[in-house]
Amino acid sequence: MERVLVKDLSNTIDEKVKLQGWIQRIRKLGKIAFIILRDRSGSVQCVVNTKEIEIKGLKLETVVEVIGNVAKSDKVELQVTSLNIINEVKIDLPIEINKTELEANLDTILNNRALSLRHEKTNAVFKIQACLAQSFGEFLQGEGFTQVFTPKIVAEGAEGGTELFELKYFEQKAYLAQSPQFYKQMMVGAGYERIFEIGHVYRAEEHNTNRHLNEYVSLDLEMAFIEDERDVMDLETRLLKYMLERLKIRCEKELNLLEAELPVIDKAIVSIPLPEAIKILQEKYGKKDLTNDIDPEGERLISVYVKEKYNSDFLFLTHYPVKKRPMYTMPAENRLTHSFDLIFRGLEITTGGQRIHNYEMLKSNMELKGLNPDSFKDYLETFKYGMPPHGGLAIGLERLTAQLLGFKNIREATLFPRDRDRLTP
Amino acid sequence: MERVLVKDLSNTIDEKVKLQGWIQRIRKLGKIAFIILRDRSGSVQCVVNTKEIEIKGLKLETVVEVIGNVAKSDKVELQVTSLNIINEVKIDLPIEINKTELEANLDTILNNRALSLRHEKTNAVFKIQACLAQSFGEFLQGEGFTQVFTPKIVAEGAEGGTELFELKYFEQKAYLAQSPQFYKQMMVGAGYERIFEIGHVYRAEEHNTNRHLNEYVSLDLEMAFIEDERDVMDLETRLLKYMLERLKIRCEKELNLLEAELPVIDKAIVSIPLPEAIKILQEKYGKKDLTNDIDPEGERLISVYVKEKYNSDFLFLTHYPVKKRPMYTMPAENRLTHSFDLIFRGLEITTGGQRIHNYEMLKSNMELKGLNPDSFKDYLETFKYGMPPHGGLAIGLERLTAQLLGFKNIREATLFPRDRDRLTP
Repeated sequence: MERVLVKDLSNTIDEKVKLQGWIQRIRKLGKIAFIILRDRSGSVQCVVNTKEIEIKGLKLETVVEVIGNVAKSDKVELQVTSLNIINEVKIDLPIEINKTELEANLDTILNNRALSLRHEKTNAVFKIQACLAQSFGEFLQGEGFTQVFTPKIVAEGAEGGTELFELKYFEQKAYLAQSPQFYKQMMVGAGYERIFEIGHVYRAEEHNTNRHLNEYVSLDLEMAFIEDERDVMDLETRLLKYMLERLKIRCEKELNLLEAELPVIDKAIVSIPLPEAIKILQEKYGKKDLTNDIDPEGERLISVYVKEKYNSDFLFLTHYPVKKRPMYTMPAENRLTHSFDLIFRGLEITTGGQRIHNYEMLKSNMELKGLNPDSFKDYLETFKYGMPPHGGLAIGLERLTAQLLGFKNIREATLFPRDRDRLTP
Repeated sequence: MERVLVKDLSNTIDEKVKLQGWIQRIRKLGKIAFIILRDRSGSVQCVVNTKEIEIKGLKLETVVEVIGNVAKSDKVELQVTSLNIINEVKIDLPIEINKTELEANLDTILNNRALSLRHEKTNAVFKIQACLAQSFGEFLQGEGFTQVFTPKIVAEGAEGGTELFELKYFEQKAYLAQSPQFYKQMMVGAGYERIFEIGHVYRAEEHNTNRHLNEYVSLDLEMAFIEDERDVMDLETRLLKYMLERLKIRCEKELNLLEAELPVIDKAIVSIPLPEAIKILQEKYGKKDLTNDIDPEGERLISVYVKEKYNSDFLFLTHYPVKKRPMYTMPAENRLTHSFDLIFRGLEITTGGQRIHNYEMLKSNMELKGLNPDSFKDYLETFKYGMPPHGGLAIGLERLTAQLLGFKNIREATLFPRDRDRLTP
């Protein structure tokens, strides 16, 4: 007898079927008992003899196989004729996972991750995350992008040596990649023109905040033959639109469960130059501590402004000053750059921009930033042999997930977070 | 004027178009010169005035924009009316990349990776690799698998402590993950039942061989509610069939260019228990040094046998002995296990099998292998709360690519290899 999934039961009314899954709840009513059986596709009520449950000493989360007849009154349920234990549970669970809400603090949830993920709301988060990653790749493949896998063990950091995890690589010293930046650009120059990568990046960030992780998944892309950063922003707009549309279709159940409100992207995303945003924050919100950059409070306030004025959950901040951006950023007039951040509901989820493609300009920009060009030899070499104009961006997958679902802490959108204190599970 | 890609030129005969790309070749014939212009989609001959080339001092691999009329005689070509340099090349290339074959040794090719990848044959390798990764995910999503991203910074190795890269994680000692094995199993137990991961894994292998890398991409999957390892093997058979079919369609041009012969999977892949394979190697090939395991030479010879007898490029070796498999492997009779390797044209590209799902069995198996269960606390804990029967496998992406394309050295199928000596580019 083939196993049937819970989600397909409505096609098998009055038939005899076999289900396999976990016992999520047990409720005894005299001689009859009701079990909620859960598999990867959903859960269903099963009617059994109380005696059978007691004889077998069934505990919550036991893995079972049940055979029975599918009936439908209000909802579909299974009239069980046989129940077999596949894998026994002998002890009580350390956390309660069968209530509507998972009532435990975040540390307890993360310490018991494999178990807390069985809670349907927690489970749904990572189905949504998987869908975001999937549709990111789908859209870009359709736009002529090639997926690449670049090394995470590197000889140099991309941002100039800070916040790097050091590694012993046989006799040499190595680091974990902070971003695939150099390799993305090299792959553009290698003739692929348009590439993307979905992979881990590492930041040896000393601070434990609600929005930083020491290891996270970066959705990266880089594209050639652009006019300037506007081409990258346009692509990101269409990309996010696609990702949100696919999410709505593929994860309807999960989004409803989490009461997620998806943002809408009509056409272009509002775009404000940073100097103008700073002025708005001064004039409208009395925030006077900003000069050349924005801080988390500023990101939140400017998002409020954009939401009120344009009814948009997204906002591009553009024209960051040269001194706030890495050496590979294309300069613009007035010591500003062809760069942008995407702010989503008060939090930066993307950094991007046009990159320098001229060898001499890149080299002298490294020197301006106090970096030694010899340290970036392989990268810099690429620019001698015909690098097209290009730009790109990176989206933090966990941040995007967290903001979509309204989480206060990015760890809620991270399977097994790595932070200042947490190295397990 | 919008840029047109070379591959779309045949739809624009007699029209005026704009192309952007690299100058791959220059041939002067008196007043007229022929340029081969290459973009990410292909290359095309462009007819220009020799004078223009000389005035501009055009060098190979210069990035240009050309406007002209599309003509067709034998082939499509462009009659150039205007040529503009987008990014200049001032020096000669360190390697010749415009010949039919890339004539350089592997070290030179890898040292100049961004440049050597512009050679159309080298370029094609990683389009094929991207397609393999893409179709791996596609197939599994269709089979109800959820993509996961599990940490690569870990507190313990999955195979028991050897060949680990050590890392300083703030005040703690950490390692780079050798495989996502523990996390895959935990995610199965977390209720997802079927999960896959595409990510880097790390082996601090001391030896420099043609088939090992210190960092590689592992295509991992794990699935619950299986009978035994046969279910995993059946899934892999269907998975590879799908991947090969998609490859044939999506990368026809690249496969032809590399003269790749795709293997055919008719139905089931031949499967031979290891003890029987050892007997065959003894009797047919006089190979008498094998007792409980197989070596690279044995893998090659048994592949020859299977190719001759069954005309198959693939072969499952099954029933590996307990002492040759990790502690999480499900034991079978006669001190053998429910495990398998997939050999493809003489090289192992997959290791897989059924895993232990019973807590006590797993714990005592750790002890049998001389491991301390306390070191695997978070992992082991998962098995107390209802772990379904499960199994999985891992495919080495670079190995699969190399074997498909008949490469002798896995580095040819690796973008930026990391090995005993190589940490750059």
